Amino acid sequence: MLRTLIGETTKYLGQKVRVSGWVNVVRSHGKIVFIDLRDRTGILQVVLNPDLAKDIKEEWVLEIEGIVQKRPAKMINPDLETGKVELSAESVKVLSKADVLPFDLRDLNVTLPTLLDFRPLTLRNEKVRKIFKVQEEIMERFRQASNDLGCTEIFVPTISASATEGGAEVFKVDYYGYSAYLTQSPQLYKQMMVPVFERVSVVTHAYRAEPSITTRHLSEVIQMDCEFGFVNFAELLDLLEFIGKAIVESEIKVPRLTLREAQEIIFQETGRDSRKEKDLGPEDEMDIYQWARKKHNSDLVTITHFPTAKRAFYTMPDSENPEFSLSYDLLYKGAEICSGSQRINDYDQLVKAIKSREMEPKNFEMYLQSFKYGMPPEGGFSFGLERITKQILGLENIREASLFPRDMERIDQRLSILQPKKLAKK
Amino acid sequence: MLRTLIGETTKYLGQKVRVSGWVNVVRSHGKIVFIDLRDRTGILQVVLNPDLAKDIKEEWVLEIEGIVQKRPAKMINPDLETGKVELSAESVKVLSKADVLPFDLRDLNVTLPTLLDFRPLTLRNEKVRKIFKVQEEIMERFRQASNDLGCTEIFVPTISASATEGGAEVFKVDYYGYSAYLTQSPQLYKQMMVPVFERVSVVTHAYRAEPSITTRHLSEVIQMDCEFGFVNFAELLDLLEFIGKAIVESEIKVPRLTLREAQEIIFQETGRDSRKEKDLGPEDEMDIYQWARKKHNSDLVTITHFPTAKRAFYTMPDSENPEFSLSYDLLYKGAEICSGSQRINDYDQLVKAIKSREMEPKNFEMYLQSFKYGMPPEGGFSFGLERITKQILGLENIREASLFPRDMERIDQRLSILQPKKLAKK
Repeated sequence: MLRTLIGETTKYLGQKVRVSGWVNVVRSHGKIVFIDLRDRTGILQVVLNPDLAKDIKEEWVLEIEGIVQKRPAKMINPDLETGKVELSAESVKVLSKADVLPFDLRDLNVTLPTLLDFRPLTLRNEKVRKIFKVQEEIMERFRQASNDLGCTEIFVPTISASATEGGAEVFKVDYYGYSAYLTQSPQLYKQMMVPVFERVSVVTHAYRAEPSITTRHLSEVIQMDCEFGFVNFAELLDLLEFIGKAIVESEIKVPRLTLREAQEIIFQETGRDSRKEKDLGPEDEMDIYQWARKKHNSDLVTITHFPTAKRAFYTMPDSENPEFSLSYDLLYKGAEICSGSQRINDYDQLVKAIKSREMEPKNFEMYLQSFKYGMPPEGGFSFGLERITKQILGLENIREASLFPRDMERIDQRLSILQPKKLAKK
Repeated sequence: MLRTLIGETTKYLGQKVRVSGWVNVVRSHGKIVFIDLRDRTGILQVVLNPDLAKDIKEEWVLEIEGIVQKRPAKMINPDLETGKVELSAESVKVLSKADVLPFDLRDLNVTLPTLLDFRPLTLRNEKVRKIFKVQEEIMERFRQASNDLGCTEIFVPTISASATEGGAEVFKVDYYGYSAYLTQSPQLYKQMMVPVFERVSVVTHAYRAEPSITTRHLSEVIQMDCEFGFVNFAELLDLLEFIGKAIVESEIKVPRLTLREAQEIIFQETGRDSRKEKDLGPEDEMDIYQWARKKHNSDLVTITHFPTAKRAFYTMPDSENPEFSLSYDLLYKGAEICSGSQRINDYDQLVKAIKSREMEPKNFEMYLQSFKYGMPPEGGFSFGLERITKQILGLENIREASLFPRDMERIDQRLSILQPKKLAKK
């Protein structure tokens, strides 16, 4: 007998089916036992004689044969797609037993460390599980939107011979005895692909050895990047917002402000003066979000013209005022979900920019080749998958938006427990 | 005036358009100059007065305005989609100049090291570029097929606290002073997701510190993985072949052989005796390919039941003969493109298997949680993106199927040139 998925059982009223899944809940009423059985398509109430139910506990994996029946009217559960039916069990086969759960998995009320210490278990909770169904959907929207814009999807390496964008926050890899690093972004590679495909998209892992614990940063993230040739700054903003709106399913025109305009608005609206700061802080981002909601009914805001010195070396300075750059961040509900810029596409200017940051052009030899042999005006941007997931769902901590989050204290298990000796040495 | 893509120019016969792209070829005929201009949609012949063409050379980036005209009948190029038209240039703007090319980029005839030393340049060659359009298509087919099978796409980390599958071929990462490793595969994570989503797919980077140079191995690859709960061995073979056939666009039933049957066929067909070997060698794989073509008209062959000791610890032994395992490889045109198995899903058996390989169960604590709390029968497989690209296109070396291949001698540039001092120390 073939397996019937739980979501399909309503089609088999009065018929015998075989279902398989995990025990979500067991409720014993003496002469009768109820089990909520869970598979990937839904939850089904199963009615059993106690002798069939024996020691069955939550998270056991069962294969049950029985008759699909209408529930008595007062037993109908309107919250379940299968809420009008139940399975009257005739036989039960135990496929896998489970230890007694360390906490209530249905009404999950645990601290973040416990949520992560028992990740394979807590992910089975319906609310937690749904975070990653939303994440899958975000990725699908990004892919669809970048495909609509004519991007070719590329695959680029994550092991690099030098730190991508300068800075100390890189993880070092022992590469056959040589020094190598994990890439902080696919930036240099996607730019190199502009003369090959003109428009590219890339989904990849990015690594930041940030020696701090915040609710917004992870040491390993998934980035969704695009890069476009033959575009100017205004076109880049259009492209950015096209993808941003697709991802958060908005159709509202996105307001655009320069950093200085945003800071002026914050000052006018709240009296708080951040007008000389070089970036927006978390509080600024929330204030601008409130303003954009009120004034433009928009959850998205584009901020442009960040100080050149605060952005990566490849960022094009604004020719009208080179202290500021042709850069942008996209904010969603008060947090940055995307960042990018028009790039320097002139070889000599780029070499000069590398030197001005006290980096060595010879460490960028392959990258610079692309510019030496004809590079059109170009630019792009990068979305953070976990950051967007967090913002869309209003999660408190970005760790909740990563299946297995990496930070300075944890690789699955807490590092201080895994490697106590290493910690002592530090 | 808006840009017209070259592939669209045939629609504007007699009209003025603006096109942008790279100079593919310049041919000067004294009083008239011909340029083949390339953008992402095609190649267009441009006719210019010499005073408009000045110093223009290959790979310069130009923006040209002119009138789309019919070519004279004898000038029609049937190999080009735009072969019946040409652009009569009225003005030319140089967007970016290019150094003189180090080799002929159109008729690219260079050694592999040169191909890779000048990667941003050699990728502009049409044949090289097309490899990665095929690669994009392979990925799209994998995604479509795994989606058709009900998989949820997941994103898993690549930094791990212990070596995934044992063995010494791992890259070590300095992780905030702790020891960490780059994952050899997403294997353990995708298995942990079976009790969450039942069926998952994952595209990720995998790392192997193989201290050898072959035409079939890279140090960093893209893997396309699936894992399925509630499946038996026969169903797994069906799932594997469903995706395999989708990727190579075959509709022919895939012949299945155990390793021992395959070796027996090789002996019968060629007289070569590999019947006691624990795996198929490259020559064996080619012989079986010849047999499958001849006997079944199939480029694909599934080989099952490899020796348990030769497969990873989580592989389910065949209960009828535990020396062999419920494992499989999918061969395409004489090379393995996919590998997988039914997994051990019983907690105690899994702990025993880990110990029998002289590994520590405590290093697999989070992984083992999944099995402690209810794991159905399950299995899966893993496709190698570069390997499939190589096989579909008949490339000689897997490095040609990676935009920026990593091996023990190269991270973009040759390591011996980048870090001569490190080399001396080794």
